[in-house]
Amino acid sequence: KIDGARLWDSLMEMAKIGPGVAGGNNRQTLTDEDGEGRALFQSWCEAASCTMGLDQMGNMFARREGTDPDALPVYVGSHLDTQPTGGKYDGVLGVLGGLEILRTLNDLNIKTKRPIIVTNFTNEEGTRYAPAMLSSGVFAGIHTQDWAYEREDADGKEFGDELKRIGWRGDEEVGARKMHAFFELHIEQGPILEAENKEIGVVTHGQGLSWTQITITGKDSHTGSTPMPMRKNAGLGMAKVLELVDEIAWSHAPHAVGAAGHIDVYPNSRNVIPGKVVFTVDFRSPDLMVIKDMERRLTTGAQVICDEMGLGIKLEKVGGFDPVTFDEGCVTAVRNAAERLGYSHMNLISGAGHDACWINRVAPTAMVMCPCVDGLSHNEAEEISPEWAEAGTNVLFHAVVETAEI
Amino acid sequence: KIDGARLWDSLMEMAKIGPGVAGGNNRQTLTDEDGEGRALFQSWCEAASCTMGLDQMGNMFARREGTDPDALPVYVGSHLDTQPTGGKYDGVLGVLGGLEILRTLNDLNIKTKRPIIVTNFTNEEGTRYAPAMLSSGVFAGIHTQDWAYEREDADGKEFGDELKRIGWRGDEEVGARKMHAFFELHIEQGPILEAENKEIGVVTHGQGLSWTQITITGKDSHTGSTPMPMRKNAGLGMAKVLELVDEIAWSHAPHAVGAAGHIDVYPNSRNVIPGKVVFTVDFRSPDLMVIKDMERRLTTGAQVICDEMGLGIKLEKVGGFDPVTFDEGCVTAVRNAAERLGYSHMNLISGAGHDACWINRVAPTAMVMCPCVDGLSHNEAEEISPEWAEAGTNVLFHAVVETAEI
Ligand SMILES: NC(=O)NCCC(=O)O
Ligand SMILES: NC(=O)NCCC(=O)O
Repeated sequence: KIDGARLWDSLMEMAKIGPGVAGGNNRQTLTDEDGEGRALFQSWCEAASCTMGLDQMGNMFARREGTDPDALPVYVGSHLDTQPTGGKYDGVLGVLGGLEILRTLNDLNIKTKRPIIVTNFTNEEGTRYAPAMLSSGVFAGIHTQDWAYEREDADGKEFGDELKRIGWRGDEEVGARKMHAFFELHIEQGPILEAENKEIGVVTHGQGLSWTQITITGKDSHTGSTPMPMRKNAGLGMAKVLELVDEIAWSHAPHAVGAAGHIDVYPNSRNVIPGKVVFTVDFRSPDLMVIKDMERRLTTGAQVICDEMGLGIKLEKVGGFDPVTFDEGCVTAVRNAAERLGYSHMNLISGAGHDACWINRVAPTAMVMCPCVDGLSHNEAEEISPEWAEAGTNVLFHAVVETAEI
Repeated sequence: KIDGARLWDSLMEMAKIGPGVAGGNNRQTLTDEDGEGRALFQSWCEAASCTMGLDQMGNMFARREGTDPDALPVYVGSHLDTQPTGGKYDGVLGVLGGLEILRTLNDLNIKTKRPIIVTNFTNEEGTRYAPAMLSSGVFAGIHTQDWAYEREDADGKEFGDELKRIGWRGDEEVGARKMHAFFELHIEQGPILEAENKEIGVVTHGQGLSWTQITITGKDSHTGSTPMPMRKNAGLGMAKVLELVDEIAWSHAPHAVGAAGHIDVYPNSRNVIPGKVVFTVDFRSPDLMVIKDMERRLTTGAQVICDEMGLGIKLEKVGGFDPVTFDEGCVTAVRNAAERLGYSHMNLISGAGHDACWINRVAPTAMVMCPCVDGLSHNEAEEISPEWAEAGTNVLFHAVVETAEI
């Protein structure tokens, strides 16, 4: 079994880097704080006698050698970047849980046949640079590296430049590594495990996602002296589209969700009717047909709204992945580990996207989930108990070691 | 008659300071560009042999002496600050039109009995610091100077500090000056004069305004893994309130308008359900009862929307003034001037707020308006013709000189 107290200490230590304003973290990708978090992780890995690999997307790979160095390694990991007002565990638990496995193997002097490699993927969150899971996506061949480098943040800074600036652009070709298997431990970020009183979620599937960035153009003009019939209010157009998004998602509930988290209004002055609004609609479902239906109804419905109001509209898909079915063998390894350790468990569909969803395309993959308080995530108040973290990491430990073979 | 070409040259010269991105201006109040614009105006006034007064709100007063220096002066002016994506004429025409009057009087060697003073009021636009017409409001005793100094911009910088930083905080007590009369020339910012094919608007009244800043609080959580029934989506609450605002304004049209130009969403991340939204509703009407009715319906209706959605709501009045009736004598002077000069004219109610609306509380006041293309303002594409600018300034010239007595 792993050392739960050591794991918790490391989680709390990492959380000191890029503190938020309300007890959580703001350690967004490719910021100086991200660089500090990476350096801390690297120092811990080196202290655990691992060697560190770094690829051209900034993905980090801490390797503990196997007795058969030519055997394909078992990979385990997640991400260290956070939301702007994020929690201390989203992603971080999966990386530091992986590190805890290596430390435990060292303590117990266990040698596995296959090397075990703990990974930190760059820009999983997708806030600063859309889409989410950008670097695991490049690793899995979904996006090209050039395209990823050109992604821009809100200030127009490019991903490639910022990666170089913080000093974490490596030489290694992205995706050249072959994996025997990949395991990711993550907090659920939803309410099911807590409601069902289970310690472990055995993740069998992942929801699919569709991000549509919508630009509505009207005409900026004076809020006081422009008569109502002459207005082209892009903000009002957006309001109607936001209601449509909600209506579409509810029509498929509980098999779909939908909302817009990102909204920018121009010129954003109290006495100027908005001439332009840019916002991103996030639709998800475990069913690809449902996602397609929601996209179709959004495209048609938003166009009708804007036509009626004399507004222009442009829709652009800025992120998306199809629903995922994880590898049967890896999923069974997770379930067997939970069973063997005597933890209560249930099958889960992941509501969020994860690096594991992309890696599943190029290697047998599975995920372990642990509960989080009130299902709350992407919020500084995100919380888990040390016992949940320990249980999840124990299951990860057993599944990984079994797969890496002793 | 004034020199239309010289006036136009000065307008174009001022427009070079704080250029916008699309042919207009971004010379927001208390920025470095505002400081530059002020310095240029001062140099022109000094070249026209005027002395410059500066009060503690940064209001500028360029004085051309009268033959009776003890007679109360006639004031004329407007503002040099602009919207973030503003036009070249909104406010500027009223200040430089005033300057053109002084230059013309110099050319013609005309001495008026009363001094004539051209004024530039600080922060008329209200974008960087709400409310609009802040410094004419302090001059008229509507706000205290301390309160004005404490207004904060979006970065938390205080008005008083920024005024000092750009070097335009004067010593003169605000509002100590007594005015015989005040005249303001302004572009209409609406479509009526152009539609009616009139060169001059004789402004008899001004609409009243009400700005309500609304903060809706929900709970930020994951857009993917939070089930629909568990969401507290502040962005969706705002969308419903925006539709309500539109419905309320239309119910009183054409005697009211309403919209929200300012919207900030937190944390503004694509995969976080908005936990907080702050936006400002702008309602206007020439009828005080209508404004009160709109405020009441907004307060009640927004509360119902938020209660039903489990959201918190806070409403704060951040700007407002009652409908204005301008001084009969001054209005008549404007109408007589238009008549005498042979310009087509009509009575107008100002749709926008102006410094004249506050000064009207402490001195006999009237406004002259000229058309603008498509009624468009608060937009970089705001446009007027040199002929319109000249006609408006000629009317201003005659009304002012008649009131200042020769
Ligand atoms: N786990 C997680 O929050 N990933 C971010 C990508 C997403 O929005 O699902
Ligand atoms: N004239 C003008 O645009 N003033 C700004 C204040 C307002 O919103 O009416």
